[in-house]
Amino acid sequence: MFVGFGTVGQGCARHLQSHRRQLSDKYGFRFKVIGITDIAKGSVLNDRGIDLSKAISSAKKQVKLENAGLGGSGGLSTVETIAKAKADVVVESTWTNLTDAEPGLSHMVTALRSGSDVVTSNKGPIALHYKKLTDLAKVKRQILRFESTVMSGTPIFTLREFCLPSAKILGMRGILNGTTNYILTEMAKGKDYSNALKNAQTRGYAEVDPTGDVEAHDPAAKITILANALMNRNIRYTDVKSEGITKITAQDISNATADSKTIKLLAQASEVGGKLEVNVKPTLLPDSDMLAHVNGIINALNISTDVQPDLTLVGPGAGGDSAGYGLLCDIIAIHNLRSGWNN
Amino acid sequence: MFVGFGTVGQGCARHLQSHRRQLSDKYGFRFKVIGITDIAKGSVLNDRGIDLSKAISSAKKQVKLENAGLGGSGGLSTVETIAKAKADVVVESTWTNLTDAEPGLSHMVTALRSGSDVVTSNKGPIALHYKKLTDLAKVKRQILRFESTVMSGTPIFTLREFCLPSAKILGMRGILNGTTNYILTEMAKGKDYSNALKNAQTRGYAEVDPTGDVEAHDPAAKITILANALMNRNIRYTDVKSEGITKITAQDISNATADSKTIKLLAQASEVGGKLEVNVKPTLLPDSDMLAHVNGIINALNISTDVQPDLTLVGPGAGGDSAGYGLLCDIIAIHNLRSGWNN
Repeated sequence: MFVGFGTVGQGCARHLQSHRRQLSDKYGFRFKVIGITDIAKGSVLNDRGIDLSKAISSAKKQVKLENAGLGGSGGLSTVETIAKAKADVVVESTWTNLTDAEPGLSHMVTALRSGSDVVTSNKGPIALHYKKLTDLAKVKRQILRFESTVMSGTPIFTLREFCLPSAKILGMRGILNGTTNYILTEMAKGKDYSNALKNAQTRGYAEVDPTGDVEAHDPAAKITILANALMNRNIRYTDVKSEGITKITAQDISNATADSKTIKLLAQASEVGGKLEVNVKPTLLPDSDMLAHVNGIINALNISTDVQPDLTLVGPGAGGDSAGYGLLCDIIAIHNLRSGWNN
Repeated sequence: MFVGFGTVGQGCARHLQSHRRQLSDKYGFRFKVIGITDIAKGSVLNDRGIDLSKAISSAKKQVKLENAGLGGSGGLSTVETIAKAKADVVVESTWTNLTDAEPGLSHMVTALRSGSDVVTSNKGPIALHYKKLTDLAKVKRQILRFESTVMSGTPIFTLREFCLPSAKILGMRGILNGTTNYILTEMAKGKDYSNALKNAQTRGYAEVDPTGDVEAHDPAAKITILANALMNRNIRYTDVKSEGITKITAQDISNATADSKTIKLLAQASEVGGKLEVNVKPTLLPDSDMLAHVNGIINALNISTDVQPDLTLVGPGAGGDSAGYGLLCDIIAIHNLRSGWNN
C-alpha cells in the first residue's frame, strides 16, 4: 500500500504499472495495491486491488481517493489504514520532518508492528530514528529499506549490500543536495546568490522557503543516514556539524575560480583519530577532484573502502521519477530477499 | 579452485583470506580451495584444502605449486585439473586472448560441463563467446559471472542485476581503458605521446607491447561485453568499430584545451535508428561532461536507462586487488544466489 501519494509515491506507482510485465517475467513479482492514503487526497482501502492508473489520474486531478471510483472503503486515518491493511509492503513517501520525524515515524512503526515491510523515501524517520526503526524491524522480522532517502534513488544502499560484499567503508564524501549544487553551479557561471536562488525556485528545484536546503539540513540528514547505514554507526543528526551556502558571495566564487577551484557543499564522514567525523560545509575543491565537476541538480557520492579505494556513484539528486524508482528498487529487493532470488 | 594464479588470482585469494571471518559471519560463506593451476606455476589438487597463505607466498617466490608443500597431487594439465576437481566454483583469471579466446575458453567450457560455476576476469571468452558460454551455463544450470572483465571489479554487472530491477539500458558511454586514459591525461599535462607512453610503461600501467591498449582492442572487448550483457544483444567483438590513440598529437591536445575540451578514448553503445551502434574512438568532450574529468588510470561508465536517465559509476580501471575483489564479489553473489540470500 501507498502512504503518501504525491510526486514520489505516484512516480513509484507509475514504474510499477509500466514495468508490471517485466517484473513478473523476470522476478516472478506480482502485486496488487490494497490501500492508498495521503494527507491531501484522503484514503482508500480495497482488498481486491486498486486500479493504479485510475488512482494516479484522479490524484493528478486532485480528486479525493474516496471519490475516485476505486472501490473499497475510505475514511480511516492513515495509521488506522496501515494497521488494518496489513499490506506485505508499505511504500512510505510522506514529507520529511527533521524535528520529530512525524508523521512518517508513526507510519513506519505502525507498519512494522502490523507485519508489513517498509520502503521509504522519507528522510526524517531514518535520519532521526535509524536504530529504533532497524531494531524494531529486526524484532518483528520485517524489512526496512530506504534507498530513496539519499541521492533520490540512485542505488547506493543497494550497491553496498549486493555489490560490495564484506567491504568495510572507511570514508565518504559527496554532493548530496541538488538544490544547493544547482545554486552553486549558477553562481560559478556569474550569478549572485539571490538570483541563483530565484532561478532554482522558478525551475522548481528550490522551495519557497529554501531553508532546509540552503542551510544544509537536508544533506546533514542524508550524511547521517549514510554514516549509520553504511558505516554501521549510531550518530545523531543533531550532532552533525553543518554549514549552509547562504554566506557565500560572488567574490568567494570568483576567488575560487581564479585559483582553479570550485566551491561545493560537501558532506563528509571520515574517521579522524579513531573517531567518526561527520559534517557538511562549503568546501574548496581543486580541479583534479571529480566532485568539482558534478554540476546542477546532480548528486555524487565517493566512497573509500578497504577493498576498492575509490568508487564514485553519480546520479539524479531529485525528481519523483527517480525517487519513485528507488522505492521500486527496494520493493523488488524485498521480494527477492524473501523469495531467495530464484529466477 | 583457481585457474590462473597471477596478480588477479592472488588478489582474489588475499581478499578471501583476509575477509574469511566476515564472509562466514555475514553470508554463511565458508570455503576451501581444492585446486590451483597456473601456466607458469604448475598445478596442485588437494581435496582436503590448500593453505592459501602458503600458496600465495610460494607463488610470489616463483616456487612451483607442486613443490610448495601444499599437499595433494600435481602434474595434471589445467583442463584435466578442472575436470577432476569438479569444484563448486572455478575462479578463472588467465590472460586475455582476443584472437581465439584460448586457453580461457576451454577452461570455462570444461568447468561448466564439469558442474562448476565460473567467475572470471578474462575478457577473451566473454567478449568473443558470450552467447555460447551463457547458453552452456544455462543448459548445465551453472552460473557464469564476469564482473572483473570490465572496470576491474568496479561492480557494474552486479549493479545492473541487483540495483536496477527491470530497467532497460538505452545507451552507455565510458572510459574503459586505464592505460590510454593515463597516457591522454599525461598528454593533457604537456607530454607528447611517446613520453606519456614511456611513463605509463615505467609505472607498470602499459605493457612492453602496448598494442592491445593503445589500439583500443581492450576497450572494444569491454564495450562488446557491456553491450551484450547489459543491453541483451549478440554483437561480435570484430564488428565494433575501434580507433586507438596512437595518432593523437600534442597539437591535437592543445587545440582541444584551447577550446575548453578534452580528448578521451570513449567507448559507446547506443541505439541509432533502431540499430545498436557500438564503437571506441578518441572523442572531444566538453568541460561540462563529467567524463572529461576522469583522469589517470580511473575508469568510468555512464549509463542511460528508461528509469534513471543518467547514472555514472567511476572506479579503478586496473589492479590485481581491484580485479581480485571483483572475483570475490562474483563468488559471493553465486553463494547468495544459490543459498537465497538468507542472512
